[in-house]
Order: sequence, then C-alpha cells, then structure tokens
Amino acid sequence: MALEFDLIETYFKPLSKSLSAEEVGIGDDGAVLTVPENHQMVVVTDTLVCGVHFLKEASAYDIAWKSVAVNLSDLAAMGATPAGYSLGLTLPENDQAWLIEFARGLRAIGEQFKVPLIGGDTTKGPLVLTVTAQGWVPNQQAILRSGAQVGDVVCVTQTIGDGALGLKLVLDSLSPVFKAQLTAGENQHLLSALNRPVPQSKIAVALRGLVNSAADISDGLLADLGHILKQSNNKKTRLATSILESSHQKSCGKSAPKKQNVFAELGADIELTQVPLSTAVKKYLAATDDWSLILSGGDDYQLCMTVSPLNWDKVQLVAEKYGVKITKIGQIVHQSGIRCLKRGTPVADGLDTVKGYAHF
Amino acid sequence: MALEFDLIETYFKPLSKSLSAEEVGIGDDGAVLTVPENHQMVVVTDTLVCGVHFLKEASAYDIAWKSVAVNLSDLAAMGATPAGYSLGLTLPENDQAWLIEFARGLRAIGEQFKVPLIGGDTTKGPLVLTVTAQGWVPNQQAILRSGAQVGDVVCVTQTIGDGALGLKLVLDSLSPVFKAQLTAGENQHLLSALNRPVPQSKIAVALRGLVNSAADISDGLLADLGHILKQSNNKKTRLATSILESSHQKSCGKSAPKKQNVFAELGADIELTQVPLSTAVKKYLAATDDWSLILSGGDDYQLCMTVSPLNWDKVQLVAEKYGVKITKIGQIVHQSGIRCLKRGTPVADGLDTVKGYAHF
Repeated sequence: MALEFDLIETYFKPLSKSLSAEEVGIGDDGAVLTVPENHQMVVVTDTLVCGVHFLKEASAYDIAWKSVAVNLSDLAAMGATPAGYSLGLTLPENDQAWLIEFARGLRAIGEQFKVPLIGGDTTKGPLVLTVTAQGWVPNQQAILRSGAQVGDVVCVTQTIGDGALGLKLVLDSLSPVFKAQLTAGENQHLLSALNRPVPQSKIAVALRGLVNSAADISDGLLADLGHILKQSNNKKTRLATSILESSHQKSCGKSAPKKQNVFAELGADIELTQVPLSTAVKKYLAATDDWSLILSGGDDYQLCMTVSPLNWDKVQLVAEKYGVKITKIGQIVHQSGIRCLKRGTPVADGLDTVKGYAHF
Repeated sequence: MALEFDLIETYFKPLSKSLSAEEVGIGDDGAVLTVPENHQMVVVTDTLVCGVHFLKEASAYDIAWKSVAVNLSDLAAMGATPAGYSLGLTLPENDQAWLIEFARGLRAIGEQFKVPLIGGDTTKGPLVLTVTAQGWVPNQQAILRSGAQVGDVVCVTQTIGDGALGLKLVLDSLSPVFKAQLTAGENQHLLSALNRPVPQSKIAVALRGLVNSAADISDGLLADLGHILKQSNNKKTRLATSILESSHQKSCGKSAPKKQNVFAELGADIELTQVPLSTAVKKYLAATDDWSLILSGGDDYQLCMTVSPLNWDKVQLVAEKYGVKITKIGQIVHQSGIRCLKRGTPVADGLDTVKGYAHF
C-alpha cells in the first residue's frame, strides 16, 4: 500500500492549486492563507461517520461532496465567503478506486464553490471524515443566530424535507404504492438532495446586512429555528442584564440586582401550509400526513432566516437575482416556543415539541 | 443520554470563554475570530484514532491534551501564534465521567497555551478525534519546510526518542532487565513525553526570522528532516525552472526549454552522537543499540530546524531565554539524501534508508 505521503501527493495535493503565490497549501506543517483586509475569519466544522451520517453503500464521490457541502452550508449561514477547507480523513484501507472517486467529488465541489483543499490528515481506522472550513466576512458583518427580532419574517430557502425523504428512499422504508407515484425526476431530486446537497453559499453573501439571523437546517427545521430563538433570547438576556446593572449602578451606586430577564422571550409562529415543498414531498405528505419528516427530518442544508419586514422586498430581489426561492413560513413573536399552525389554527398534536435530530 | 446540545453546553462551551466581545465562539453555525492586522492565517489539522494513535486504555485527559498538543506543535513548526482550535469528536457513547476528564484535559492545555476551543462537532461512532487549529503569522513570515539552504545547521529542540520509548513502556515490550534500570523520574518522563507532549509554541514565535526552515517531528527525525529536504529541493527546482525560462525567453524569444534542475540537490549529514537524548533513552541505546527508535520512532513533537550559521548564536540566545535546549545535530550539504555518521564515519548499516512512521 502506498505511504500516506504518496496518497496525499497523488490524490489531494492537486486540489490545493488555486492558492496565490503568497500562500501555502498542502506539503508543509500547515497551510498559510492571506486574509482580506478588514475581514474576520469564520470557522466551521462538521464530522460525517459511516453508518451514521451516510450509508456504507454511499459512493466515495457523494461522501466527498457532502462532507464539504455541509461545511459550506454552515459558512453560508454565517454569510461568509469560503476560503479553504481541511480534511481529517480516517480510512479503513488504502483503496485506490475509492480514493480516485473521493478526490473527484472533492474536486467537483471545490471547483463549483471556488474553495481549495488547504490541508488535512489521513489516518487508518474506521471511515470517519471531519472537515473544517474557513471563510471571511467583513468585520462585524457575520450573520448570527442571535439577531432575531420580534416582528421578523421567518423564511427558508428552496424546499424542505427532500434530504430526509431521500434517506427513506435509500433505506427502502417507503411503501411500494407511494414509490410508484414518484416520477424518475422526483426520484433523482430526492437522491441529489440526500447525497449532493447544494449549499446556499452564493446567495448567503448577498443576504449579509439584509437578514437579522440565520442558521442552516441540518438538524431539522424546528430544531434549527429553535437554535435561532435560543441564541436570540440569550442575547436579549445578556443585554437586559447589562442595561439593568448599569442603570442600577448609576441610580443608587449599589451592587447590581439579581440577574433577570425584563423582556418577554422570543418565539415563533410557523404556518405549516406555507412551508415550501417539492412535488415529491407533497406526494409523501398526501400519502402519510407525516409532518415530522419536514419539521424534524434534518439534512436539508437550506437556510432558515429571520428578516425585518422592512427588508423583505430587498430579500426577494436578491432571491430572484440568484434564482433561489425564499419563502415566508412564519413570524417571530413575543411568546416563547415554536407554535405550528395550519391556516392560522394551532396544531394540537404535539408538533410544537418535536425536536430535531439527536446525535446521542 | 443527553442530547448533543446539552453535551456541548455542559462540557465544551466553557472552554470557549476567552474570546473578545467582537468574536463568536461555540453556539452558532461557526466561530468568528478577529484577525490581527497584517497577518496571515495558518491552519493545521491532525487526526487521532483510538488503537492507532493512542491505546484503548489511554485516559480521556491525555487524549484531549495530545489531540490539541500535536496541532499546536504543527503551528509552532510554522512559527504561528495559536488563535483557536475546533474539535471533531466521534464518541462511541455519552460517558459523563470520560467527558469530564476529557474537558479537563482540553482546559489544561487551552489555559497553558492560551488557545480557546472555538467550535466543533460531536458525533456518535468509533473514537476518532480531528482537531483543526488556526494561528496567525505576520505577512510572509511563516517558517516553511522549503527554506533550507546549503551550509545550514540542522538542529532539534529538547531530546528525541522519548515518546517512542514511552510507547514501548506502555506496550510492555521492554525487557525486565532494562526496565529495572529506569528510575521513577525517568519512567514519568517517558510517559509524559508519550501522553502529554509539550508543543514548542512559545519559543517558535521567537525563532521566526532566525531559522530558515522547520518541521515538527511527528513521523520520526529522519522522515521529518526528509520533508524539509524534499520541500526545499522542490522550491529550488521551481526557482531554477523559472529563472531558466525567463532567461531563455529574454535571450532568444523562443518557448522555454524542457524543465531541468540546474542546481545539485540538497541533502543532510547527521552526526548521531550529537542527537540529544534523555538519560532514559541513553540507557535504552546502551542496552539495545536500537537507533531506529530515535531516528524513526516519531511522536517527538520537537522541532527539527535548519539555521544559517550566521544566526546560530542568536538562536542559542533565544533557546536560553525560553529554557529550551536547541542542539546542532548536522548540516545541510550539496549531496542528496540523509547520511547518518558516527563521529564523522558514515554508518553502513542501512540507517540512511530508515523511513518514518508510515500511516498506511
């Protein structure tokens, strides 16, 4: 079997080529990247485990694509421009055919999103991949989860539930009757959504300054919207505490009062009938009424965002320009928790407590 | 079992605290770090696999320490100041006692080297850790492997072979007669070298501008010195080709000639008797004459550097200031390959072909 160094030289080093002369890619102890002026660095990490995040039967090309795509999706959620990624690849064996396909997948997504491989480590062991990607945002312009405001429109890119339905298709857990309803195009769409998700990298950068908060939908729509609410509430609490402390100190010069949240908590109302669905997922819903696939399935890699109504028209113009559908699905309100509604009526079947994908 | 988010909140988020108000740590899709002005980013990645890079019996504290230390060692080899690290942690189960010890190990090394955890991903599966660390270097001042020059002093920090002998100790593959010769202090030194290597982060930054090239010794002294020679030769070839091409174009205006290397290749002469050894490794060598442990054992996390003789005195002053021993072990010469000498006489037993740790 080839030594690690040959393996890197043959398969991975060619993917590092798009760096400038002042930069260093694969072949040293580390990579060196030039930072654009007045920018901050954004760092994201995602691990994919064979048998957990992808099936044993998954193609090496798809594994490579997805391992980078899920990280680009995180960068997109921060409004960051991708700069490079490194790969921790643990492999059971040095399988040349697998590696050729894997490198082909890395090359495809790297070229499509102009993001070079800048380094990594190849080790022997069970198939596990950790990708860490770096990106740049102009100083203080990262889109954070913590920026949601009461009155914001809650919206998502493209359609929801396709990756989760794609997984059911691959696992062969769908009824023959339902499967017979899917067209070849719908089948293909679901498999693509599962295996080769397209991160919203291009539009994300244009949405900087227009959206108040964002998260990418990896754990499930409700879970990831929940992360936005939690971080936004944390921030409000921190702000309230610091305002209280400073006003108390000014007014009586004594020690600060006990921490308390003077603002009502943020929550969200979601109108289920507005959640954008592909024709395949619509058929699935008609057949099963299984909303959990859409609300908690995860693996969407679309953006869930909150936008001030004042910016909504501008967001729609950006959506049109980039050919990405952005659909309003609800609103941020002064009531904690997430309420799922159908045509304005709360759904009383416990959907509001449905959680996203639990890793443990 | 706790959800991933509880696990992150409880064990990992507290390690992210040392970021500034303009920065974002754990809790969003990614971390946001402010870049010091006129600096480049350095990125390094290392993966540790249970049963390959550490034993099943290794303590969670040691695994945490080492997973960060080996990355800080790579940053040190580049002359970079650590900025933060992210962790891809794949765990077979949510074992609270293990996680508490693991977080304690992360905290210890994070505090010692002032490097915060900035993000990561926790997944279920076989125990594998990938750490990616970011650091900063002033523009164009990274120490590269490719900078070695003929006449350079080859030197290393501290002592070599301790980690590899520590592994033999833990694997119980040493003779009882030899083990009886080790003092309690020597035993402790070997186990520390294996389990809690101390990266040369502090001195590395001070060596920027004084050393021509560096690599950290993870694969073995000869292998890592070999990386320096290979990268330096590659660079010379590139330079030579570009000089030839431009002079040819200037002189006759025709297409460039075939690529060729007009300079002799770099190599190194290493004087084995000068390689700095701990008392434990000296005893091992006296008992076994097994130089392969020292030359190819790996897991040293010391720096192998090449230094112009003009800078040697300054390097010694820095070494003194930081309390780190830097020992001359050889010289870069105009002859390709690495020759091992004993008191000036080439060692004829094939040591010059000993390779470093092969990952596959």
